[in-house]
Amino acid sequence: MIEAGRWLKQAMTRYKILIEYDGRDFVGWQRQDNGFSVQQAIEEAIGKYSGETVTLFGAGRTDSGVHALGQVAHFDLKRDDAPDTVRDALNFHLKPHAVSVLDAAAVSEDFDARLAAKSRSYVYRITNRRAPLSLGRGLSWLIPVPLDAEAMDAAAKTLIGKHDFTTFRATQCQAKSAVKTLDELTVTRTGEVIEVNARARSFLHHQVRNLVGTLKLVGEGKWTAADVKAALDKKERAAGGPTAPADGLYLVEVVY
Amino acid sequence: MIEAGRWLKQAMTRYKILIEYDGRDFVGWQRQDNGFSVQQAIEEAIGKYSGETVTLFGAGRTDSGVHALGQVAHFDLKRDDAPDTVRDALNFHLKPHAVSVLDAAAVSEDFDARLAAKSRSYVYRITNRRAPLSLGRGLSWLIPVPLDAEAMDAAAKTLIGKHDFTTFRATQCQAKSAVKTLDELTVTRTGEVIEVNARARSFLHHQVRNLVGTLKLVGEGKWTAADVKAALDKKERAAGGPTAPADGLYLVEVVY
Repeated sequence: MIEAGRWLKQAMTRYKILIEYDGRDFVGWQRQDNGFSVQQAIEEAIGKYSGETVTLFGAGRTDSGVHALGQVAHFDLKRDDAPDTVRDALNFHLKPHAVSVLDAAAVSEDFDARLAAKSRSYVYRITNRRAPLSLGRGLSWLIPVPLDAEAMDAAAKTLIGKHDFTTFRATQCQAKSAVKTLDELTVTRTGEVIEVNARARSFLHHQVRNLVGTLKLVGEGKWTAADVKAALDKKERAAGGPTAPADGLYLVEVVY
Repeated sequence: MIEAGRWLKQAMTRYKILIEYDGRDFVGWQRQDNGFSVQQAIEEAIGKYSGETVTLFGAGRTDSGVHALGQVAHFDLKRDDAPDTVRDALNFHLKPHAVSVLDAAAVSEDFDARLAAKSRSYVYRITNRRAPLSLGRGLSWLIPVPLDAEAMDAAAKTLIGKHDFTTFRATQCQAKSAVKTLDELTVTRTGEVIEVNARARSFLHHQVRNLVGTLKLVGEGKWTAADVKAALDKKERAAGGPTAPADGLYLVEVVY
């Protein structure tokens, strides 16, 4: 029996996949009753390819409308195909959905895409111009009033480090603790595009979007860096700025 | 009568507008019977705003599916509103179409967006990777086999200058002469993205897409730079490579 058990365990191959998707087409990463999720799209593609029913574990539970350039997930298969074969087969069966498997690798059975992640990086893209979006619709947040990106960057510095981020946490967030360590939060401008880069081991629900919505107030000159610090210290969601729309948010990289 | 004629002429204001659009939503720049064009979208917006029926003259007649980051056009209005008012009103009336007026300026009555253009710049974007496009669908040409961008760039150099470009001209092209001067043609790679930049006073129909389709053969190792030069010298369309799809082409800038 032990031998049989060991055999079964060894017969499974764990695959790690790197995923890109357009968040507009989905209710978010996670399976939900109210619509089509990225997780469901990929699980169905795996099923069509392998005939096996699998559960996919993702590194980041992106919300509806949030994009990914480098989401990571893992799943187990009984069949042991070459990773490139798995990648190509999944891409074939993912059509016509706007999800793409950039890479696949066979990993050890103790790799966990969610638990083993050492850092997650997001970028939030703002288009700062008066004219509406055309080519970039749904891919960034249009802010028509001029923003001071340098002031936003200076205010962002006050948020880096280990803090209780209750002020920037969605009220429906289910994390046990609001204490997180923000390793990076920078604001840079290139022409009309402002990018907010955020990196941490993990984030609270809506944390990046709530940080961006607050930094926008600084960019408009309505808040100072000291106001941001005071809001953080209040540890209540009502003290923070509004939630930035999903359109501009991208999960860029997960590091293990 | 002379006085009245002069008055009428003086009463018109010529506006120059800078335009961005997503080519996927249109049959191309120019008005056509078989669908909705960018020109029609903007002419209708001008009509809704001003009550006047105008003809819009564009600098470049982009094809169906071709995008613009900096198309330029001009039109005349009896009313003499501030350019910023015109820009905002057009953007309001352009909704929900994926066209955006980035800038508007009042110009002298002899300015002609098409005839006065000293140069037109295009960029052609290739995504060179095995995985399908998701976020970038319709916005670049996916080429799954590895391309040698340096070889493409070297071959591009043989095409710069004044030549008879019959080999790279659509058979339905209506230009009187196929002799054009190509001022710039460069190929650069940044990660998985290859960009072909082309600049000339004017281009033949499909010229950029035919050049890119030919350079792709060089990138794949099927053609050498000498093959490209020989194809140019043959002065027949059948000697050139295939036409690259519209998806990756952007009209970037028009200089006056």
